[in-house]
Order: sequence, then C-alpha cells, then structure tokens
Amino acid sequence: MITQHPEREQILLENVLSALGNPLRLHVVRVLAAGGEHNCSNVLEGVSKSTLTHHWRVLRESGVIWQRPSGRENLLSLRREDLDARFPGLLDVLLEAVNSGASSVAPHGAQPMADARRG
Amino acid sequence: MITQHPEREQILLENVLSALGNPLRLHVVRVLAAGGEHNCSNVLEGVSKSTLTHHWRVLRESGVIWQRPSGRENLLSLRREDLDARFPGLLDVLLEAVNSGASSVAPHGAQPMADARRG
Repeated sequence: MITQHPEREQILLENVLSALGNPLRLHVVRVLAAGGEHNCSNVLEGVSKSTLTHHWRVLRESGVIWQRPSGRENLLSLRREDLDARFPGLLDVLLEAVNSGASSVAPHGAQPMADARRG
Repeated sequence: MITQHPEREQILLENVLSALGNPLRLHVVRVLAAGGEHNCSNVLEGVSKSTLTHHWRVLRESGVIWQRPSGRENLLSLRREDLDARFPGLLDVLLEAVNSGASSVAPHGAQPMADARRG
C-alpha cells in the first residue's frame, strides 16, 4: 500500500471537503462508489499522467481513497467504511447531489469539462 | 446587497465543498447556522481584516452565505434555503460531523487553530 494514507481517526472533514471540491475528483468518487478496486487508468480518461498523479494524491492524503500498486498500475478504491464512520450520511448526500445535476459533473457518467481538470 | 452572489441554480456542489474545505469557514457556517444575520466582526475574532475579506468572498461567491453592508460593517447569513434545495441533507450532515469532532473545528464553539486561517 502506498504510504500517506491517514488512519481513520486522522481523516478530517475539512480535508475531505477540500479534496471533493473539484468536479474531476467528484467524478472519481462517483465511479469508485460502485464498489471494488478500479484500475486508475480507467477511472479518468484523457487526463495527463501528472494531473492524475495530483488528483490521486489529494484523494489519498485526505483519506477519501485507498491506492495500491498492482503491476505497472495503481488500484483505487473508495474508503467507504471509514468515511461513513467519520461522517455519517455524507457520501450518500454527495452522490445524490451529483446525480441530481447540482455540480458540473455530468449526471450520467460522462466526464466533466476539461477546464476543470486542475485544482 | 454586495454583488457576486450566485443565483440558487448557479450554486455548484464542487464550489460549496471547496469553500467549506477549511476549518475557519466551517466554523463560520456553524455560527451562522444558528440563524439570522450576524455582524461579520463578531463571527471570527482575532483574524486580520484582509483574511476575513478573503473568507467572506469565498463563502459568498460559492453561494454559502449572503453578505450585505450595514453601516460600516457587513451582515452575514447562511443561505440555508438555497443550500437545502440544491443539496438536500448536506448542511445537516456537515454540522453533525463538526459537532462530533470529526474536523479541527473545536466541538464546543471555540475557534480552530490559527495555523488553519488561510486557504
């Protein structure tokens, strides 16, 4: 497992909100919320490797995702149990808001606008 | 009313999350959640005027608060109806998480650490 994953008790609300305050990272959370591990190269397409690395780091260090190496790739999964324990109801409310179109994440799974890819 | 308040339909989840991804601004939301208008100089004490201006701007432009001038001060209030309409349940979940101690905002109303005052 890559280091820099906080323990459950170290996950802070402000860090999670800051990590999710970005349409690409919200999109990632929605994809991972389906469950299981996802190959990082399949979660966001058409995004440069350095930008991906940035987004994985923000999500990992805030405690939103697990990231572990597997061959030449990394596998990502949502820390759903930890997040639900720390912030009961938060993920469900956020996913519902994304699916209702209250963000610039496309409601039906398309990726958000390219101009939102940094931040 | 100061300009740069988005209309309800323009309030985006990622902007609200980004605005609230900061312990001082989470503290402000908790204070304003009591309801009514608050004089901006009473909401955060011991913070420089330029830092306050920065935080009010982030909260205002993301759609979290109303800010209006009153004499030499500004009055702040939470856009609770708009936020509840756009993101049902979000504010309640966040306030509960703050009150449970899952952030670096002090659970009982004291202000968060000074080193978190920018961002």
